[in-house]
Amino acid sequence: MDRRGIGVFDSGLGGLTVVKELRKIMPYEDIVYFGDTARLPYGTRGRDVLFSYIKQSIRFLYEKDVKAIIVACGTASSVLVGHVGPEMPLPFWTVIPAASQAAVEATVNCRVGVIGTSATIKSDAFGREIGKLAPMIRVKGVACPLFVNLVENGYVGRDNEVTRMVARDYLSAFEDFGIDTLILGCTHFPLIADIVGDIMGEKVTLIDSGRETAKFVAAELREKGLLNDQQRHGNVSYYVSDKNMGEFSMIGSIFMEEHIQGFVRHVDINQY
Amino acid sequence: MDRRGIGVFDSGLGGLTVVKELRKIMPYEDIVYFGDTARLPYGTRGRDVLFSYIKQSIRFLYEKDVKAIIVACGTASSVLVGHVGPEMPLPFWTVIPAASQAAVEATVNCRVGVIGTSATIKSDAFGREIGKLAPMIRVKGVACPLFVNLVENGYVGRDNEVTRMVARDYLSAFEDFGIDTLILGCTHFPLIADIVGDIMGEKVTLIDSGRETAKFVAAELREKGLLNDQQRHGNVSYYVSDKNMGEFSMIGSIFMEEHIQGFVRHVDINQY
Repeated sequence: MDRRGIGVFDSGLGGLTVVKELRKIMPYEDIVYFGDTARLPYGTRGRDVLFSYIKQSIRFLYEKDVKAIIVACGTASSVLVGHVGPEMPLPFWTVIPAASQAAVEATVNCRVGVIGTSATIKSDAFGREIGKLAPMIRVKGVACPLFVNLVENGYVGRDNEVTRMVARDYLSAFEDFGIDTLILGCTHFPLIADIVGDIMGEKVTLIDSGRETAKFVAAELREKGLLNDQQRHGNVSYYVSDKNMGEFSMIGSIFMEEHIQGFVRHVDINQY
Repeated sequence: MDRRGIGVFDSGLGGLTVVKELRKIMPYEDIVYFGDTARLPYGTRGRDVLFSYIKQSIRFLYEKDVKAIIVACGTASSVLVGHVGPEMPLPFWTVIPAASQAAVEATVNCRVGVIGTSATIKSDAFGREIGKLAPMIRVKGVACPLFVNLVENGYVGRDNEVTRMVARDYLSAFEDFGIDTLILGCTHFPLIADIVGDIMGEKVTLIDSGRETAKFVAAELREKGLLNDQQRHGNVSYYVSDKNMGEFSMIGSIFMEEHIQGFVRHVDINQY
């Protein structure tokens, strides 16, 4: 039993989809969320810059005395693959392993697609992880950078014609590859999963990397005896790096389906 | 006569539209360009973060021993209004004054529109400048944040249906206001001026804030006797803050209509 919170880190808002899932599965856990809003988006940046940002974010969460850290951001996760090993002083997860495992279990024809930011796809982190788990599976990645901007600008909803056109354009790259499973390798993408699903068709299983990771982490913490046994619902503390917190509070409240205004605090991430 | 270069600063690539214009008007000038690619986009950030970024960028250009600095970025310009006065040790221009002056000269019905990033529109920097020049003019600003992403993802060209749909959506906000002049208050927007022009109709004059500023700066330098009299074409030195310079070089070469690969250098902007 461990009553400390769980740290969740993302470049911005997207990781809230993981928080929401964690709260569904493990309602008694406290969560410390950090969104690096002053420095987003991560998906178009180089590896060195990303790596220095991620280290600061992890240091911040570590100082908040959490019992485990989840890197919810697909881009940050893909940069960390190979850099973070057993030397971490506390349980630590990116979204790569759980989502890759789920894809391996879901595919029948051994053809898996991955969509993510440019940095995520360039890293081939999901492809390499799947290769380790099941070398016979063929993986094709397609960068969909504009999806992040569309979601952040509210171009969501099944009938959004702009997002649908952009999605048809991006997803046409899978046409000749015949996938039956598609990993949503970015925390923003579950918000447009309906459009992606319509275009890919019902024979393609969508894997929500955040949801799979939340399920995986819950199982791991339970197995390690690290769950919180308090008999009250856990709290979420939100921290962001941009002083302009209005937008995070507003869109975050929609994401979380509860008012988070007043619970969002600023942190000067350059001090970490 | 002053043979030092002219410093141009933008959050990323957009300011190259200003560089191109400067080279047309003043071919003998050397130019030092800085694109803060590690920390873009500026348009969605809070004022404090932006102000600290801008100060570092100006310090960097200042150390490059330039004779004048142009802030090509509409967002950075709008943040600087009111902050930068005659105490600057060298000639210094944002895109606000020249573009506002051009709009005042162009409008007949005294109704001017401004499009820009969220930060630019929120600041109302163009509106306040126009108010000083001609108080009878009514100004309406509309934030078009997704335009920046669309341009950066190559959704340009007059027949781009996605950009056209997004533009129709944003620009419909001007329908009942009856403008005859529209300021493109972001360096990215000239790349989709054809689409904006089609939607607004030929009775609306588009003001390219970068081009107006280049013309204005040329006249000012000439008047102050600061032009370079060397009898060779000037050089452009490109600096960016993200180590990943490939994309800047590639898209920058398209912007500049010449190969800039090999002329782009990295600068660690956090050291300034």
